[in-house]
Amino acid sequence: MQHPDNDTNARDPAMNTDFSQQVAWNEQGLAPAIAVDASSGQVLMMAWMNAESLALSVREKRAIYWSRSRGKLWRKGEESGNVQKLHSIRLDCDRDTLLLEVEQVGGIACHTGRKHCFYHTLNAQGEWEIAEPVAKDPKTLYGKPHE
Amino acid sequence: MQHPDNDTNARDPAMNTDFSQQVAWNEQGLAPAIAVDASSGQVLMMAWMNAESLALSVREKRAIYWSRSRGKLWRKGEESGNVQKLHSIRLDCDRDTLLLEVEQVGGIACHTGRKHCFYHTLNAQGEWEIAEPVAKDPKTLYGKPHE
Repeated sequence: MQHPDNDTNARDPAMNTDFSQQVAWNEQGLAPAIAVDASSGQVLMMAWMNAESLALSVREKRAIYWSRSRGKLWRKGEESGNVQKLHSIRLDCDRDTLLLEVEQVGGIACHTGRKHCFYHTLNAQGEWEIAEPVAKDPKTLYGKPHE
Repeated sequence: MQHPDNDTNARDPAMNTDFSQQVAWNEQGLAPAIAVDASSGQVLMMAWMNAESLALSVREKRAIYWSRSRGKLWRKGEESGNVQKLHSIRLDCDRDTLLLEVEQVGGIACHTGRKHCFYHTLNAQGEWEIAEPVAKDPKTLYGKPHE
């Protein structure tokens, strides 16, 4: 999509937030953001972004989500230090879902101390089974109990 | 999570839909479902599921989503033949997001005729750029124009 002011804004991508307006945010102003490991491509987690968090993620080159439960920006890793360094951002065909390629500092994306959040797998008996070990005790990840 | 009737239901996973009740569906009864290629791990698309579509996906061993725009079950590939054969289903730590490992029949997940849906990438100028070619003319994918 071309904008008349692209010529000036394009010089400093950190200042150009038109891209953020071009996402089809839902009625709450949010879009799902899937974070994948930039090296392995493994899906780490899914969280939510709004226009501000997307623009800030690009400016600060790290994943910044919108925490629906806390109603505020969530700079991933702000407590644990497990920052997600941003390598690339993609947008899907409907422009309503984001895909982030990140470098997961500390190797742990999940607040339970696992590498990724998708650790329940449906087994042959039709039960959700835990299929991923805790890599690091979550008590050592945070100074206080995490929601 | 253990249920008192697991002993009987567990014999036939296709009949046990307790797992579907254990997902933390949102206020619309939906959860995001991320589909990844079972071989490469590449993220193909994100769609939505409800309890019925999840149970049916497991029973029919193919991805069946809930189409929010059409307000009905969406058997992925029902028009194009590009079915997603289901290899595994995962659930995240909050139990509100699903991850499907699928075999994408025809190699095309996106209704635009691309391999996957995340074909816009944010370039250094802060513009969404198309970074994935059309692999197959969408006119040949569907009998009628696709929404």
